Amino acid sequence: MSFSLQLADAVRRVGNPLCVGLDPRWESLPQLIRATYADGTLQGIAKAYEAFCIKVIQIVARRVAVVKPQAAFFEACGPDGFVALQNVLRAAKSYGLLTILDSKRGDIASTATAYAEAAFTGPQFEGRTLPVWGADSLTVNPYLGEDAVQPFLDTAKKSKKGVFILVRTSNLGSGLFQNLVSEGKPLYRHVAEAVARWNESTRNESGWGDVGAVIGATHPAELAELRSLLPHSWFLVPGFGAQGGTAEDVKPAFLKGGLGAVINSSRGITFPFPPEEPQWEKAIQNALEQTIAQLRSVAGN
Amino acid sequence: MSFSLQLADAVRRVGNPLCVGLDPRWESLPQLIRATYADGTLQGIAKAYEAFCIKVIQIVARRVAVVKPQAAFFEACGPDGFVALQNVLRAAKSYGLLTILDSKRGDIASTATAYAEAAFTGPQFEGRTLPVWGADSLTVNPYLGEDAVQPFLDTAKKSKKGVFILVRTSNLGSGLFQNLVSEGKPLYRHVAEAVARWNESTRNESGWGDVGAVIGATHPAELAELRSLLPHSWFLVPGFGAQGGTAEDVKPAFLKGGLGAVINSSRGITFPFPPEEPQWEKAIQNALEQTIAQLRSVAGN
Repeated sequence: MSFSLQLADAVRRVGNPLCVGLDPRWESLPQLIRATYADGTLQGIAKAYEAFCIKVIQIVARRVAVVKPQAAFFEACGPDGFVALQNVLRAAKSYGLLTILDSKRGDIASTATAYAEAAFTGPQFEGRTLPVWGADSLTVNPYLGEDAVQPFLDTAKKSKKGVFILVRTSNLGSGLFQNLVSEGKPLYRHVAEAVARWNESTRNESGWGDVGAVIGATHPAELAELRSLLPHSWFLVPGFGAQGGTAEDVKPAFLKGGLGAVINSSRGITFPFPPEEPQWEKAIQNALEQTIAQLRSVAGN
Repeated sequence: MSFSLQLADAVRRVGNPLCVGLDPRWESLPQLIRATYADGTLQGIAKAYEAFCIKVIQIVARRVAVVKPQAAFFEACGPDGFVALQNVLRAAKSYGLLTILDSKRGDIASTATAYAEAAFTGPQFEGRTLPVWGADSLTVNPYLGEDAVQPFLDTAKKSKKGVFILVRTSNLGSGLFQNLVSEGKPLYRHVAEAVARWNESTRNESGWGDVGAVIGATHPAELAELRSLLPHSWFLVPGFGAQGGTAEDVKPAFLKGGLGAVINSSRGITFPFPPEEPQWEKAIQNALEQTIAQLRSVAGN
């Protein structure tokens, strides 16, 4: 079953659009986990990240459809961090969650294929496929243009996986280039129109396609504008919570039945406690339920 | 000493602007190396990549200033690939080469900091710095805007490292967004003007700054245009050789004395032989000398 269909099924099943972002940061981890793994090496830190993220996965598994590990924090631990990332992605799958690997990859030709195969299928060597990340979907940067995005689209299509193209990012300064107006339309709209085109050939019987768009919660007007331009694409909406986007802000992202968008919250769910809090799992559960209730009230699930 | 000064010194010393791209591909590796390491695992492939790249480093070490490992091919081998990448970067340093880590990273806020610290300094944990890639410079994607690029600039500045911002990429379809005209100028020119601004505060006594630009050899007219706009930035010029850029095409990239640009060749240097060639090291040496001679004739070193 293709990614977009799986995502629609999963969001329908859990009845809410929350995506839990897994952005482990050493200084925010529970003191109890730090004390267990800290040994002054990157390997110790990577193991702490893995243990923490898998605990979060266990807490959220039956309540949400999808989790989004942020590759940068794992890369910060070097090769051991990537072992942790691999184990976190595997754990998410084993708990029945869909995964968005947030690594914002982008490059040309066979280089893009290498990234895409790593994300989805694993590369083919001597006729065998060797899995790497096994993600269900990947975030992709469009700056290099269509022929650079194509290998991601092709590899995703072959393996029934999804991509989320960066359209309008959630950061305060995202407009510097994304808002430049050309031919009467801002750059992000040109990118969105390309997403619409790329998505078209991936549409399945339910109407959804597997080429989605990243659009920040901090831009409610653009969410509404792009929702009507991209009626068949899933949106990944970052910037909710810690970055300032509210539940009301993300309302325009949804189509009927609360489908069409997943709203990411990272720190708001995973770090709603000071590191010394012994009841941190309970704090995560509470934050999770509050956020789900908030999002349900606007999504219409 | 800052990156741009080190690069100027190194290019002056070797007397040519060649950058050797390390893009290992299983199907192109010498049969002899494949046979030694192939064991049907990603680890075996990663070890073959490492052995091959370190051999290339040994061959080119005294003849060129800089090498550029492409992160995607290492990522394709999963965590073991990143061990190989780490060893390749260390080997390059130990042979006195400067390194450009080509991973085209880009993200916001603390996420960008995580990537930048991984590239340059290693992250700080409990007051200790734990090295990760130890690269001298990094390629960065500008689509997310100034506040997203800033953590890369800040971390580079603190550690005297360099960044190369993607301005005009070498692929055929790079114009889709990069050529969109806004306020009378194409997008890539807006990005170049931001590069000029970002570079200004990093300029050292020699006049160079540590914020460079990636501009493809396949766009000679833009190389000339951007050379005059960015007189204090180093250019990283991909697309020479296998991608179609000629020595004549890259001529406009140079300032006097053959400084100001490094011209990357990957396949042209590292894979000028069929896999079954037993004398593949000799073939690399020959390709290296031919390419150096070609580039010297236009660079004016």
